[in-house]
Amino acid sequence: MLKTIDLNSDLGESFGQWTMGDDAAILKLVSSANVACGFHAGSPAGILETLKAAKNQGVTVGAHVAYPDLVGFGRRNMDIASDELTADVIYQIGALQGLARAAGTQVRYVKPHGALYNTIAYNERQALAVIDGILAVDPQLPLVGLAGSPVLALAQQKGLKTIAEAFADRAYHADGTLVSRREAGSVLHDAQQVAERMLQLITDGGLKSVEGKFTPIQAESICVHGDSPGAIAMASQIRTLLEAQGIAIRSFISQP
Amino acid sequence: MLKTIDLNSDLGESFGQWTMGDDAAILKLVSSANVACGFHAGSPAGILETLKAAKNQGVTVGAHVAYPDLVGFGRRNMDIASDELTADVIYQIGALQGLARAAGTQVRYVKPHGALYNTIAYNERQALAVIDGILAVDPQLPLVGLAGSPVLALAQQKGLKTIAEAFADRAYHADGTLVSRREAGSVLHDAQQVAERMLQLITDGGLKSVEGKFTPIQAESICVHGDSPGAIAMASQIRTLLEAQGIAIRSFISQP
Amino acid sequence: MLKTIDLNSDLGESFGQWTMGDDAAILKLVSSANVACGFHAGSPAGILETLKAAKNQGVTVGAHVAYPDLVGFGRRNMDIASDELTADVIYQIGALQGLARAAGTQVRYVKPHGALYNTIAYNERQALAVIDGILAVDPQLPLVGLAGSPVLALAQQKGLKTIAEAFADRAYHADGTLVSRREAGSVLHDAQQVAERMLQLITDGGLKSVEGKFTPIQAESICVHGDSPGAIAMASQIRTLLEAQGIAIRSFISQP
Amino acid sequence: MLKTIDLNSDLGESFGQWTMGDDAAILKLVSSANVACGFHAGSPAGILETLKAAKNQGVTVGAHVAYPDLVGFGRRNMDIASDELTADVIYQIGALQGLARAAGTQVRYVKPHGALYNTIAYNERQALAVIDGILAVDPQLPLVGLAGSPVLALAQQKGLKTIAEAFADRAYHADGTLVSRREAGSVLHDAQQVAERMLQLITDGGLKSVEGKFTPIQAESICVHGDSPGAIAMASQIRTLLEAQGIAIRSFISQP
Repeated sequence: MLKTIDLNSDLGESFGQWTMGDDAAILKLVSSANVACGFHAGSPAGILETLKAAKNQGVTVGAHVAYPDLVGFGRRNMDIASDELTADVIYQIGALQGLARAAGTQVRYVKPHGALYNTIAYNERQALAVIDGILAVDPQLPLVGLAGSPVLALAQQKGLKTIAEAFADRAYHADGTLVSRREAGSVLHDAQQVAERMLQLITDGGLKSVEGKFTPIQAESICVHGDSPGAIAMASQIRTLLEAQGIAIRSFISQP
Repeated sequence: MLKTIDLNSDLGESFGQWTMGDDAAILKLVSSANVACGFHAGSPAGILETLKAAKNQGVTVGAHVAYPDLVGFGRRNMDIASDELTADVIYQIGALQGLARAAGTQVRYVKPHGALYNTIAYNERQALAVIDGILAVDPQLPLVGLAGSPVLALAQQKGLKTIAEAFADRAYHADGTLVSRREAGSVLHDAQQVAERMLQLITDGGLKSVEGKFTPIQAESICVHGDSPGAIAMASQIRTLLEAQGIAIRSFISQP
Repeated sequence: MLKTIDLNSDLGESFGQWTMGDDAAILKLVSSANVACGFHAGSPAGILETLKAAKNQGVTVGAHVAYPDLVGFGRRNMDIASDELTADVIYQIGALQGLARAAGTQVRYVKPHGALYNTIAYNERQALAVIDGILAVDPQLPLVGLAGSPVLALAQQKGLKTIAEAFADRAYHADGTLVSRREAGSVLHDAQQVAERMLQLITDGGLKSVEGKFTPIQAESICVHGDSPGAIAMASQIRTLLEAQGIAIRSFISQP
Repeated sequence: MLKTIDLNSDLGESFGQWTMGDDAAILKLVSSANVACGFHAGSPAGILETLKAAKNQGVTVGAHVAYPDLVGFGRRNMDIASDELTADVIYQIGALQGLARAAGTQVRYVKPHGALYNTIAYNERQALAVIDGILAVDPQLPLVGLAGSPVLALAQQKGLKTIAEAFADRAYHADGTLVSRREAGSVLHDAQQVAERMLQLITDGGLKSVEGKFTPIQAESICVHGDSPGAIAMASQIRTLLEAQGIAIRSFISQP
């Protein structure tokens, strides 16, 4: 029986005259594109171009919703009121749905970006605000969240489908949490090692933590990066290794 | 036989902590609400509140798309590239559609705001960019434009429905164009006079120009303001006079 | 011997077409104007107008620096990196200095706004970032901060002058901290009571806490509001009562 | 007798996480840095870094003021009111002066950016608004403008010093105006040819127009680009050729 896994990456993160990442290159490697919605990155014309490219590559599109913080790229925690966060999420999903329609594709899931992603993994108030936003605009959209974090159960309890996600280049603690970026060794740079870890994740259902123990991680999607040539090389190596082992790279959304 | 006319007004133009207009008051008077989409005004939580109020009042909602110019309130001409303008229009309509869905209502038309409205009335390049945006996101959405201006024929030629609009408090030239705001007498302040002009517009199909001649104006909607107590009083007087003459205030969109 | 106190208020908080507060009215009542610098509020033309009015009224001007968060009005905590916060503070002070020069006046102090004010009262990392910004652009500018909070000692230790501030309409705990706005009774609405509390603050060096005990508060400046007719009436009553008791309203900065 | 010329380039044009240009590389080649002020590009922390690098390289700093249009990179004409443009110019110069002070350097001139630069070359109303802004904040700051354009005489008439500027990689008409970017051949790509043209400009006081005639151009500064490896190579070739011919690259500002 064939195993499958989803590879996702952040796209559409250019802004006006500023470019970020190589969307064309990464679109050839992933099955899902988390597309910026204009709050942390992405201006409409650039987003539209990315969506058209995703459509052409047959890559599934998700809304990469974020805090309203362009200059901080959505990476700074914000203590935002729940009704504002809910409306911000709806606005961003709606905007991307409009652009996706124009590109001949559809928004199929929601993945919060940066600080919002990390915050809602554990902060119930903000998590509920995001969940409420998705429910209000389209309850069929699954929420992508950190494997093992409370936000997934919370979203399911509220009626959303969820997708548990692992990070290809991040070290994990024995309890399944990510090693903080502030600690040495939190980010892995060896593409071969990373690819082998992801193979283990899929075949064994977990990987080795920094404490040295095997840690179970149930993930339906793996996040890879495309914002540097090195990142794209790593994503390519992951894909190649997985496919060589008979694992198909395929979106968690069954396409019509 | 009963005559009908649409009254429209600009709403949702608050931004964060800054309020503008009295949306609750004007929603009792108009049949169509041009709701800001975040580019010239409107933050998501405030827009959502306005949409819910419009839904509760049974007022039809349109997307009030604008140049990306918050500090200038979309009132400054911008020489924006066509592909950027098209994508900006799609983004704004999509965002409002998302919020409208969350409010239990729908975006039913598009009316450009401020400088964009005035520019596309006569500038074919930007008009086409806006039309392309509407066609790409939802070709069923009619475009509201200045009665008698070339944009209406252009939009029809491209397949869009259009709604011709007159301005209640503006003076007109004999050729049907608006008297520029820079000229004295361009804006009318006497509510009774304005109400009577609008009655004439509906019953006689035109009104008296500043040159003194009767000017034919075919309008399916009349724009009134709600941004000051005086403006709301004027809108109220228009509605009262029209209804007293047996003219129903009704959206140009036939609601299901 | 004549006692003096400074009254300060937040000004220049309009943005583009959106107005906030009645700057002309409050400028007649206060001795110091905390003028927005464009990050939480204030567009250049409006700020310039406020600065000219302050100059005409002989009111001392301070830079009301804030987080970069227009839509949130600088009221949402942000976990901003130190070097970014330092540069943001310098940028805002510089911008206001430029506009002040054009208005024939000068920036004489710095008072952080909203969430930044509250955060640096107790968060040493962000407090140091703000202090570094002031030191880098003009070490002669005093920092206005919450009376009794650690930021004042920290700033002094780094070489800044400081001004301790009390809030006219806020309830205090027995330890000198403010009662959180989330608690009932945190904000006082009776203008006469507020005026009498401020008189006591000046004459007795403290006021009655919500726990019922007299709480010493050393404040050189009192913050009053001007963002509503009620707020202006309260500020007026405070000023009238203090002056009737022989207390002069005077900036903490000795003007040349 | 030694001839000198100023080479200037646009710097500080990164924004938050987005980078643009190689400021470190171009700072080794030019004598003047037009530093973004946050309206078309530049976030405070990045601007500050660029200013420190300019200071370290002994490069003179100017304020690269622009329309408030981040997403359009200040390249779109805006029909902005004079008082708003004046205040925007003051705000930007002030902000950069603050950051320059923190970097141990000074703003020594003003060069409008992009669409604003092109507009004020010929549009008297906007030109006067910019000139008024400079006069209000620091009348000692010279204005850099297009050689041969009316803005220079206008600024001088109002009391400003001016610096006439030529563009290294642009073709000129016989009347001294730039060939529009919309026309083929408007931008020159051959670094050797460009360098030789600049040598001729300095030694002969003009260069060959697209119409084939020698066109006199009086320029005290030459604008070169640093936003791509090719641009930096071209700037390097210009500098090398000029220096080989005994022409010193030196700011038009005599440094203390």
